[in-house]
Amino acid sequence: MDDEGKTVTELAALVGGRVRGDASVRIKSVASLSDAAEGDIAFVEDARLLESVKETRASCVIVPEGAEANAPCLMEAARPKLAFALIAEVLHPPKRFAPARHPTAIISESAQVDESVYIGPHVHVGERTRIGSGTQLHAGVSVGDDVLIGSDCVLRPNVVLYDRVTIGSRVILHAGVIVGADGFGYVRDAENRRHKFPQIGTVLIEDDVEIGAASCVDRGALGRTRIGRYTKIDNLVQIAHNVEIGERVVIAAQTGISGSTVIEDDAIIGGQVGMGDHARVRRGAIIGSKAGILPGKIVRAGSVVWGIPARPLDEYKRLNAHWGRLPTMRAEVEELRRQMKEVLARLEENKEE
Amino acid sequence: MDDEGKTVTELAALVGGRVRGDASVRIKSVASLSDAAEGDIAFVEDARLLESVKETRASCVIVPEGAEANAPCLMEAARPKLAFALIAEVLHPPKRFAPARHPTAIISESAQVDESVYIGPHVHVGERTRIGSGTQLHAGVSVGDDVLIGSDCVLRPNVVLYDRVTIGSRVILHAGVIVGADGFGYVRDAENRRHKFPQIGTVLIEDDVEIGAASCVDRGALGRTRIGRYTKIDNLVQIAHNVEIGERVVIAAQTGISGSTVIEDDAIIGGQVGMGDHARVRRGAIIGSKAGILPGKIVRAGSVVWGIPARPLDEYKRLNAHWGRLPTMRAEVEELRRQMKEVLARLEENKEE
Amino acid sequence: MDDEGKTVTELAALVGGRVRGDASVRIKSVASLSDAAEGDIAFVEDARLLESVKETRASCVIVPEGAEANAPCLMEAARPKLAFALIAEVLHPPKRFAPARHPTAIISESAQVDESVYIGPHVHVGERTRIGSGTQLHAGVSVGDDVLIGSDCVLRPNVVLYDRVTIGSRVILHAGVIVGADGFGYVRDAENRRHKFPQIGTVLIEDDVEIGAASCVDRGALGRTRIGRYTKIDNLVQIAHNVEIGERVVIAAQTGISGSTVIEDDAIIGGQVGMGDHARVRRGAIIGSKAGILPGKIVRAGSVVWGIPARPLDEYKRLNAHWGRLPTMRAEVEELRRQMKEVLARLEENKEE
Repeated sequence: MDDEGKTVTELAALVGGRVRGDASVRIKSVASLSDAAEGDIAFVEDARLLESVKETRASCVIVPEGAEANAPCLMEAARPKLAFALIAEVLHPPKRFAPARHPTAIISESAQVDESVYIGPHVHVGERTRIGSGTQLHAGVSVGDDVLIGSDCVLRPNVVLYDRVTIGSRVILHAGVIVGADGFGYVRDAENRRHKFPQIGTVLIEDDVEIGAASCVDRGALGRTRIGRYTKIDNLVQIAHNVEIGERVVIAAQTGISGSTVIEDDAIIGGQVGMGDHARVRRGAIIGSKAGILPGKIVRAGSVVWGIPARPLDEYKRLNAHWGRLPTMRAEVEELRRQMKEVLARLEENKEE
Repeated sequence: MDDEGKTVTELAALVGGRVRGDASVRIKSVASLSDAAEGDIAFVEDARLLESVKETRASCVIVPEGAEANAPCLMEAARPKLAFALIAEVLHPPKRFAPARHPTAIISESAQVDESVYIGPHVHVGERTRIGSGTQLHAGVSVGDDVLIGSDCVLRPNVVLYDRVTIGSRVILHAGVIVGADGFGYVRDAENRRHKFPQIGTVLIEDDVEIGAASCVDRGALGRTRIGRYTKIDNLVQIAHNVEIGERVVIAAQTGISGSTVIEDDAIIGGQVGMGDHARVRRGAIIGSKAGILPGKIVRAGSVVWGIPARPLDEYKRLNAHWGRLPTMRAEVEELRRQMKEVLARLEENKEE
Repeated sequence: MDDEGKTVTELAALVGGRVRGDASVRIKSVASLSDAAEGDIAFVEDARLLESVKETRASCVIVPEGAEANAPCLMEAARPKLAFALIAEVLHPPKRFAPARHPTAIISESAQVDESVYIGPHVHVGERTRIGSGTQLHAGVSVGDDVLIGSDCVLRPNVVLYDRVTIGSRVILHAGVIVGADGFGYVRDAENRRHKFPQIGTVLIEDDVEIGAASCVDRGALGRTRIGRYTKIDNLVQIAHNVEIGERVVIAAQTGISGSTVIEDDAIIGGQVGMGDHARVRRGAIIGSKAGILPGKIVRAGSVVWGIPARPLDEYKRLNAHWGRLPTMRAEVEELRRQMKEVLARLEENKEE
């Protein structure tokens, strides 16, 4: 960004917005409505919050099309939050890293590293590994042998890639991410000791994936673990051997996915979800936080499930409400039993009369 | 510690204890009652364990005031465990690290590092970062640009601080802690692809905070993520963007806190708890292990909650007991239905008669 | 492996298999039945899958003894999957690392490192630490002072060992494992501030243990945290201070075990399990994924438990089924109440008549 920022006109052109008010105002930064100061652009997506626009100090506010709001400069957009995000990409571009190979970095002779790559201090790059243009390897990153990394990736400090994994382009791996460790598979012998089932497969992480800090993606046992394009994974997530994750999937923090489970495109998985092995989450399904998916279970396309073990959300909520009224039901059953005893006694009397 | 240790008299003075027996005994180490040997000091807080004091080989035992116990040397204290911890601080002070800048460390020219700082092997310190007196950066620590670190902090091996985070004084970050990674926030476009919502905020970790191994604290999206003074966080914990944690809060291992949630002072959060976004845990509330707090939920000050979704502990336990008796209730309802059928038949007969 | 592979005869001799068909075929690699090509060996353990043997392109298939299957070369084995794993060890031995001390590694003068040890780039080894023959320390590993590491261990990149921990022989620690960080123990003072309870104990990891990526094993507070022989631990697992884990135990990903809990030999713990402190899992017990074990709880030897809080699996499943039928029971109770009202009214009428 040049320090002068952009005019509202320029920004509106980027996102197809329509300006109401002074379109020549210069914007330097994005901000929330409440924290914004002069030179900032903010947004309101929820119509109920339009009232607060009049109190902001932002120089421009992005609002839904046709919204009523009181400010010197408004930008109408079909999806204000998206417009805000796209404008932020322009006003706050990621820090640039000039091509470099830090003198403390150890890069194997046989590695093929594009000359535009940034390699920070104390990085290690193994044999025959190839790294595409514009990629950044920050301090302490360790890349094994025979790894492929595409273009314009960002590997934050202390990321570890084991041998033979493949990373697409524009992939972001946050600090401490570990890709390609051995899967958790053993075979017991007669003394109940475990021998490693071969963990000699690979990992494929496709383009435009982002993986959060300290998350782990194990290699396939024999085949491959795959994470599809545009998928976004939060921090401290565990992806086991041979898991297959589709495109545009979202997985929140601390979720764990067991071996050979399949998550199809566009699924959304909450935080701290646990999935057994060989399960399948079909296209577009949504799994609520902390849910537990049993091994082999199939979650229907587009369905929304919750609970341990997971059930359709509506059913789960209904059952949970019933559960909350158990003391009432208990009392009712007690009362019925008391009454029944009385009724039976009365009938016995009548009989005798 | 000098190798001679301290006399019981000296230690008692430190913690306001009262000595019964030979106060001139020299103590070199703390130990548990069962493992203690000559030269050790142990403690008993629970009156039921006083009986075992006579079997210990400890040279001195800290006991509650007025406790009956049989040992050559006792130290009475209002709170024996606290006295023991304070004595341990004196007998087992943290290892000292002399000021140093390891020749393999890479420290930016523009960084301002106090000359008393210890910087270990393979550390990286970014541009314009400032580090206060007595702080230790152990092997492999990576500190970004424009970071502020106070005095007497300890950053264990491979800690990662992203750009622009602020750490107070006497903060302990265990190995693998990651502070300031991007929060998990995206905006979908028309093709269901996700664009990063700007993650350009900061993190503030206040004085005397301790964070356990491999825990992650994300930066604020637009604002700030904050962890208040004296708060203690265990291993593998996830703190999302814009979370606000008060003072003297305790969070056990593997808990995850979603974006913008607020935890007020003195709250206690168990292990593997999951909290949705925009929730609020009021002052002094206690959340049991594995509980799930729904997004937007408010947990009342001083309350104790448990379960998924969380309820007041007493209620949860009562419901759980009812749940355990469901087979009994099922049988009772069956019996009632059988009896009712009989009663209705009997009444029908009576009518006909 | 020499590039020529091994003959089926040679492989059969290794695992006590019996060959049917051409035993002179050369095998170069293991593979799954479906992905196998010429030169591969595959296996079938489940008799229901024998049918698919005829479609594989594997040069040899390991099958149960006496199995009917149609292929040019079969190897009968008592336990095909175990035979397959043992054959994989021969065909795909771990990559060898020649003895080396990378010039960027920092090894204390007082450390005793066997000359056969491989030390990769940017490793740090502290004072008086001893490392046995054939052990590998990969890039960025940080080992503290007074650490003991046995023979033939593999420490993957960025493993951190704090001071004074002990690691046996043939131990595998995956990337990002952290051993010996302080346990999470504090004592409150009058202002509700927490002082560290002394965390001055140690960790013992015995022979043939494997620990997955980013898992954490805290040191004992006063005593020791121990992980017994042949135990296998998955990724992102938390083992707290003073936990005692027996031999041949298996612990799946993201499980957390609180302080002083004991897990006896041969127990199997699922993923995302949470265990309170001072619990005890007796010999051979199995704990289902996501279960919660209450503090102090004893899980009986050989039992199988599940749920939060955990109950015997059969009971848990039965209760869960009852829970799922709560709406039905609710309706039945409603109907009973309606009928009872009617019955009582009828009886009242009869009385009046």
